Amino acid sequence: MSLRVFAARPLAGEPAILDPDESHYLRRVRRAPDGAELELIDDHGELWSARVRSGDARRSEVDLLAPRVVPAPPRELVLLLGLPEPAAVLELLPGLIEIGVATIVWVRCARSQSGPPGDNRLARVVRAAQRQCGRPGAPHFVGPVELAAAPEQRPDLPGFFAWEQRRGLSDDLAPLVGGARLLIGPEGGLTPAEAATLESAALRPLGLGPYTLRSGTAALVGLARLMFAPTAR
Amino acid sequence: MSLRVFAARPLAGEPAILDPDESHYLRRVRRAPDGAELELIDDHGELWSARVRSGDARRSEVDLLAPRVVPAPPRELVLLLGLPEPAAVLELLPGLIEIGVATIVWVRCARSQSGPPGDNRLARVVRAAQRQCGRPGAPHFVGPVELAAAPEQRPDLPGFFAWEQRRGLSDDLAPLVGGARLLIGPEGGLTPAEAATLESAALRPLGLGPYTLRSGTAALVGLARLMFAPTAR
Repeated sequence: MSLRVFAARPLAGEPAILDPDESHYLRRVRRAPDGAELELIDDHGELWSARVRSGDARRSEVDLLAPRVVPAPPRELVLLLGLPEPAAVLELLPGLIEIGVATIVWVRCARSQSGPPGDNRLARVVRAAQRQCGRPGAPHFVGPVELAAAPEQRPDLPGFFAWEQRRGLSDDLAPLVGGARLLIGPEGGLTPAEAATLESAALRPLGLGPYTLRSGTAALVGLARLMFAPTAR
Repeated sequence: MSLRVFAARPLAGEPAILDPDESHYLRRVRRAPDGAELELIDDHGELWSARVRSGDARRSEVDLLAPRVVPAPPRELVLLLGLPEPAAVLELLPGLIEIGVATIVWVRCARSQSGPPGDNRLARVVRAAQRQCGRPGAPHFVGPVELAAAPEQRPDLPGFFAWEQRRGLSDDLAPLVGGARLLIGPEGGLTPAEAATLESAALRPLGLGPYTLRSGTAALVGLARLMFAPTAR
């Protein structure tokens, strides 16, 4: 697995200083010696090739060698995520980050059982996923918002929602011009009234095959379907 | 959650007999009384609307009312799955079943750490996923086979493999005529030699975005990309 650490971007020519958490990860967990090559993600969301200069498990210095250009995902996707259990969110989140979702809006639905995960746990999971997958920028988090207000988020993007009553409908996706929004209900799904609210706000039901997908599967499969949908010319 | 049980298909007009496991699930876990409506998946892989007739938590009888037609997934997908840890396979499997993969071929790769999960655990996880998602037929399981022999599986279908060195390549997928094969490496990925073997057997690298996906994410995202790819006319 590639070695990646996080630090504030230093002044030009200066080394980046790793905080105690990152120094511990670098020196104790990954046992990197001085001179080791690695990647550094800075607080501007940029990725650098870098080399360990000096330090220890409490404070290490890393030289930035050159910026690394990471291509953007094929399109900007906004996930309107009907709040499931916080544990389910944290389990799902790494996959959402890997596939490259730009924004996650927490949405309170009729069948949502609780609020979003706490900020600290969320930040830890996001950072671990970025470390693993090499994504330099974290997704934006918005909300929670009520379901009725969810369509007001990014109304410039075409909107879709996974809707089990329309399962089997899978060839109804026209080519996309740019980004897209996808709403996924919580475990237990959306209520018919919620689906009607979304349709009246011009979100369209998106088929994800003939079977009932769990929320986490539906989010990944739906995002993949939109991410790699044909682009309108 | 919908209530679904498994039983052998009875003679016409006779009730289906639930075995002790299924009777326990029906009566103890789901607390279904006589007369409860449910769905039954028979040993021919067909789904019925049904009603509980009689019995208890050791042996229950269920009347079949009418067959239910479940549409097939948009296309037949064969997953050539580089063997990760058995625990990771079991965690991944429900999503693969929900998205509708037809066949899973276990593939021994250079970085595979172990064999496939045991038959009993596999069967339990498959059945639980079918119960949850309403898929009447289980996927076929094949292998394990060595990576060099994996391209011999279903050579009638166009083949793809997720290959991190080609990440960022995401617009290289021509419309598909029918089904497709997808090979996913184990945790740690394919070796360059393995990728060369696959390319020489006419499998093509498939881009899944700019970041490094874990095996489980790559399998779901890659299958979703193929499942909902445009169909050649």
